[in-house]
Amino acid sequence: MSKLLIVGTVAFDAIETPFGKTDKILGGAGTYIGLSAAQFNVDSAIVSVVGDDFPAEYLDLFQKNNINTEGIEIVKGGKTFFWKGRYHNDLNTRDTIDTQLNVLADFKPVVPEAYKGAEIVVLGNLHPLVQLNVLKQTKNPKLVILDTMNFWMDNALDDLLKVVAKVDVITINDEEARQLSGEYSLVKAARKIQEMGPEYVVIKKGEHGALLFKEEQIFFAPALPLEEVFDPTGAGDTFAGGFAGYLAGTKDISFENMKNAIIYGSNLASFCVEKFGTEQMQELDRKQVQQRLEEFKKLTKFDIEVD
Amino acid sequence: MSKLLIVGTVAFDAIETPFGKTDKILGGAGTYIGLSAAQFNVDSAIVSVVGDDFPAEYLDLFQKNNINTEGIEIVKGGKTFFWKGRYHNDLNTRDTIDTQLNVLADFKPVVPEAYKGAEIVVLGNLHPLVQLNVLKQTKNPKLVILDTMNFWMDNALDDLLKVVAKVDVITINDEEARQLSGEYSLVKAARKIQEMGPEYVVIKKGEHGALLFKEEQIFFAPALPLEEVFDPTGAGDTFAGGFAGYLAGTKDISFENMKNAIIYGSNLASFCVEKFGTEQMQELDRKQVQQRLEEFKKLTKFDIEVD
Repeated sequence: MSKLLIVGTVAFDAIETPFGKTDKILGGAGTYIGLSAAQFNVDSAIVSVVGDDFPAEYLDLFQKNNINTEGIEIVKGGKTFFWKGRYHNDLNTRDTIDTQLNVLADFKPVVPEAYKGAEIVVLGNLHPLVQLNVLKQTKNPKLVILDTMNFWMDNALDDLLKVVAKVDVITINDEEARQLSGEYSLVKAARKIQEMGPEYVVIKKGEHGALLFKEEQIFFAPALPLEEVFDPTGAGDTFAGGFAGYLAGTKDISFENMKNAIIYGSNLASFCVEKFGTEQMQELDRKQVQQRLEEFKKLTKFDIEVD
Repeated sequence: MSKLLIVGTVAFDAIETPFGKTDKILGGAGTYIGLSAAQFNVDSAIVSVVGDDFPAEYLDLFQKNNINTEGIEIVKGGKTFFWKGRYHNDLNTRDTIDTQLNVLADFKPVVPEAYKGAEIVVLGNLHPLVQLNVLKQTKNPKLVILDTMNFWMDNALDDLLKVVAKVDVITINDEEARQLSGEYSLVKAARKIQEMGPEYVVIKKGEHGALLFKEEQIFFAPALPLEEVFDPTGAGDTFAGGFAGYLAGTKDISFENMKNAIIYGSNLASFCVEKFGTEQMQELDRKQVQQRLEEFKKLTKFDIEVD
C-alpha cells in the first residue's frame, strides 16, 4: 500500500448557494483531498492545524477513512480556520463573505515521522511557504502534486514560483493557468508553466472537464454532465485527491496511468458537487464510483473506421 | 451518394479579431456548412440568395466542391447580405458593427427539383419562416437538422418553435439552449428541448466541445485544444456541416454514427478557426482531416481496468 502525504486546510465552511445554505460544516482543501483519496487503497496522512473547537467526530471520520491524523495539530484555546462564501446563480462565481484565519495564521506544519517517506505528496491549497516547509520534511517522494489558486498568485507570487519549480505536477483552473502564464491559449499556458518546473500540468475547467499536458501530449477528461450542481465547494480539491489517490493506489505514475487518474478525479468531483460540502464524499462507496466510471466511458467512447 | 440539401446565408463578412482584420470576404452559414460537408462523399446543394455583386469565382468554388448552386438565386441589381463584426480579446464575445440584409430581406427560397428528395436537410441559420418554407418543398427527408441562434429566439420565437417541432436534430450553443429551455443545467435544457420536437439535441460549447443527447443517453465530443484561435467566425456552421456531411456520406443516421459525426464536426471546426473566414476550409484536404482525427482519438482515449 502506497503512502500519500497531504497538506491542506482542515476548516469550517459556511456556504450559501441558490439551493440552500449551511452553518459551519466540515471543509478545507486537506479534508476534500483526503476524503477523495480514501476511495483508493492508500495509507494517507493529513498535515494541518485546527483549534480545540474542532469536533472529535470529524477526526474520527478521517480515521475511519484510513487517514492518519497525527499531523493535524490541535491548538489549545485556538479557533479553527473559517470561510464563509456565497455562490452566484450560475454557480461559477462566488463572493467570499468572511475569512477567519485563526490558528492557520501561525501554522508550522510537522510531517509525522512515518509519512516523511511517502511515495506521493499533495501540496493542497495553502500559503506556498507552508507547502515548501512540508516538502523540505519529505524524503525523496516519487511524485509531488501542487494545487494552488489565484489568491497566492496575487499575494505571494515569488514564494509560489519557488514551490512550482520543485513539483512534478501542478493542478490549477483555467483562469489561474492564464494568470500564471500570461497566455490566453491553454496550450501555450501549459507549455509556459511546464518551463517553470512541473513536467505535468493539469488544467481544471470545472463543468468543462480537465486537460492533462506532458510535453507535446494532451489528454482530456470530460466532466460528467449533471442534472443539478448543488454546491461546487471542494470540487477542485476532490479532483486533486482522486488523481493522487488513484496514482498512489495503483503505484503507477506513468502518463498513461495519469490519464486514468484524471478520469477518476473528474469522477469523484462529480459526486462532490451533488450535495452540500463533504456530505456525499462521506457516504460514497467504491461501487458508486465504479458505476459512474461506466458513464464516463460511454460519454467519450467512439469508434470511427477510417477508410 | 447521398444528397444533402442546405439552406443558409451566402454572404460577405468583414471581420476584425485581435489578430487582424479583413475587408469583405466570403461568408455566411450556407457557405460554411457547404464547404465543411464537402469533405465527405456527398452531393450537396445550397439554397440561398446573393446580389449580382457576388463574384463568379465564389460560385466556382462551390461547384469545385461538388456543391450544386442552382438554388442560389442571383438578384439583378441586388446587393449581397453583408455582416461586419469585431471580436473581443477572449474571442468568445463579439460586437456586430453592421448588418445589411440587402437581397436577404425578400428571399423566397426555391429548392432545385433534383434536391427535393434529398435524404438529409440542413436548415442553416436564417429566419425560421425561410427554414419552414424550404422544409415544405422537400419530400420525406430521412433526417432534418436545424441550426439557429438567439437572434431568432428574441425576434421570431413563435415561428422558430414551429420549425423546432418539425426537425429531428437541433444544434445550438450552450447559452441558446439555456435561453430556449429556461433551464441552466444543460442536461435539463436538452430534455426540455427534446420535448419541443427534436429527438436529438446537440449543444455546441465552442472551445469546450459539444454534447449530443438522445433520450437519456449523452455523448461528448471535445474541442481540440489549439495553440491559436485566429477567427471563430463560422465555427458553429462548420461543425453542423461536418456533422451533416459525415452522416450523408456514410448513409447511417444511427445514434452510434452520430457520435462519429459530432467528432467530425468538432474536427472540421478546429480547422475553420485557425485562419480568417473560409480560408482554411477552402484548402483543406481529406488527409489533414484524417490526421487530426488521430489527435481526437488520443485526446480522450483511456483504458481503465476495473478490479
